[in-house]
Amino acid sequence: MRFKTITWEKGKIVLIDQTKLPGRLVYARCSTVKQLWQAIRGLKIRGAPAIGAAAALGMVLGLSKKNEKSYLELKKNINTLFKYIASSRPTAVNLTWALKRMRNAAVANRGKPVAAIKKLMLKVALNIIDEDKAICREMADSAQELIGKNDRIMTYCNAGMLATVGCGTALGALYRANELGKNVKVYSCETRPLLQGARLTCWELHRHKVDVTLICDNMAGYLMQQKRIDKIFVGADRIAANGDAANKIGSYSLAVLAAFHKIPFYVVAPYSTFDLSLSSGREIPIEERSAREIREGWYKCSMVPRGVKIYNPAFDVIPNSLISRIVTDAHLVKPPYIKNIKKLEKLNTA
Amino acid sequence: MRFKTITWEKGKIVLIDQTKLPGRLVYARCSTVKQLWQAIRGLKIRGAPAIGAAAALGMVLGLSKKNEKSYLELKKNINTLFKYIASSRPTAVNLTWALKRMRNAAVANRGKPVAAIKKLMLKVALNIIDEDKAICREMADSAQELIGKNDRIMTYCNAGMLATVGCGTALGALYRANELGKNVKVYSCETRPLLQGARLTCWELHRHKVDVTLICDNMAGYLMQQKRIDKIFVGADRIAANGDAANKIGSYSLAVLAAFHKIPFYVVAPYSTFDLSLSSGREIPIEERSAREIREGWYKCSMVPRGVKIYNPAFDVIPNSLISRIVTDAHLVKPPYIKNIKKLEKLNTA
Repeated sequence: MRFKTITWEKGKIVLIDQTKLPGRLVYARCSTVKQLWQAIRGLKIRGAPAIGAAAALGMVLGLSKKNEKSYLELKKNINTLFKYIASSRPTAVNLTWALKRMRNAAVANRGKPVAAIKKLMLKVALNIIDEDKAICREMADSAQELIGKNDRIMTYCNAGMLATVGCGTALGALYRANELGKNVKVYSCETRPLLQGARLTCWELHRHKVDVTLICDNMAGYLMQQKRIDKIFVGADRIAANGDAANKIGSYSLAVLAAFHKIPFYVVAPYSTFDLSLSSGREIPIEERSAREIREGWYKCSMVPRGVKIYNPAFDVIPNSLISRIVTDAHLVKPPYIKNIKKLEKLNTA
Repeated sequence: MRFKTITWEKGKIVLIDQTKLPGRLVYARCSTVKQLWQAIRGLKIRGAPAIGAAAALGMVLGLSKKNEKSYLELKKNINTLFKYIASSRPTAVNLTWALKRMRNAAVANRGKPVAAIKKLMLKVALNIIDEDKAICREMADSAQELIGKNDRIMTYCNAGMLATVGCGTALGALYRANELGKNVKVYSCETRPLLQGARLTCWELHRHKVDVTLICDNMAGYLMQQKRIDKIFVGADRIAANGDAANKIGSYSLAVLAAFHKIPFYVVAPYSTFDLSLSSGREIPIEERSAREIREGWYKCSMVPRGVKIYNPAFDVIPNSLISRIVTDAHLVKPPYIKNIKKLEKLNTA
């Protein structure tokens, strides 16, 4: 059943081409950094933790083509690759988090021969992948106290196996709940314009025999009004120091609707998703993507009259006041977020 | 520029086949009631006031095929046609409102010869069409005190010329505002699954040189959060005696978001949309449509994995507490709605 979202194989990055789902499960091989950059920008791989892993491997891939004579030369190449890979998508911070970790590994080992540093960097990249699996499991376990038997849970976009190397963030919690016999029922919002909810979340949940029902994004409020939703679980692409969380466009609307209906709204994301350099979500850059995604999406024809303006922001920010809990690694963070995220920082730097 | 949404031409019903928009402006001719029924069910014609007009003409069309010998026979045929046409779509009350008016015309003239009654019924049907034009103008004028210069207005689904015989309900108000030089800017939500906002609202607004920008439904909250929306105008398919208003699925979510952001939410609908037999919106029947609309919509391929359950309610109900004003005919109805809708009833039966 299990597929591999992203792996390092014989000097190449192998990843599921998620643009081909749900039609076909196809693996794409990236043998150049440019291919990887395009795979990230073109959403062949997406999901904050997964593109973090991709960025780390991308750094390894890029350096594998070089033959630096000195640490200085290596450092220059690392910086160039850092900027290039980080430019593929602006909102998810996991991308730069992984690149920073790779760069730090080089800096920490600057005294060693270039070949040895590169070997260590590959190890760090593979560690990031292994850690992601472990962290997904931790989050899934931590989330269990939030999930009851027969809960009807709404989710948004894809925060599952396809968005991570492990069992997922929000969906990881739901998989674990069902392993424990909780029999949760999932409502997946389709997530316009690129339908990650319909294409990816439904695909992986259905494949793993989780009871999933697809709805359009605009039906979410109606379901809540009808008391058919107990909880909402989503992932995140970047979380500021005050707990404001950026996630796929539409998450904010969902959080407002949840607050109005007094439904708990949970964010599940690894600690690498926190960006403590930002005091609030207002500072998170919001990626704006091509109008074509709304005009045509995955289809070959347009349902939008020619000449009509289209606005396509890819993310929005859920203010901390609308988030009931943040599940991160082995922690369940509750409000007040500024204080409790600071505590978390101390734990993570201890 | 002006097109004719629905007309009676030489014993046939001619209507724009709205399933072909925005690609092609094609007129469909219905020469049997079955064709008309299918045109309504299949959304070739949609929009509460427009299907009211269609139902009235459908009754005329159906009777034109018969050759009743007596009033009793005529009455029987009228009742059969009533039930059949009303069964095409359950939520919009304008359908049964128009059919009742047609039936009442027959009952009121029961003493006359059958042919004379039928002639009168055609006149009533054509009156319904003419009245719709006048009422759209009235609503557009009444709404002006709610619209300011350079207002940025969000609308949903299609409540325009394509949804009426006249200039529209919600969009009629916006057309009129721009005639008066108010220069409103419109945000049209695409309205999944069948994209009436993208396909129809953008098409008619763009054609009439109204500044329109298309967004996905899940972006509405983000735009409100960014203070880019001043007001929301929508139509309605049925309004209960307490002001609860059924409209295209997603309208409820939009109303909750508007309340949260303190943005006025206006419903524009002719008086024929009121159903005073229902004390609240809970009693309004909600049409559930085929999963195929979400799976494929207007496209020829599916982006939903095989076997995944799909839920497709076509309408939801906006509770009166979330509606700032209801614009109907020459009236601006404000809360408390139960009392003020009762007053309206007196005016209309006076």
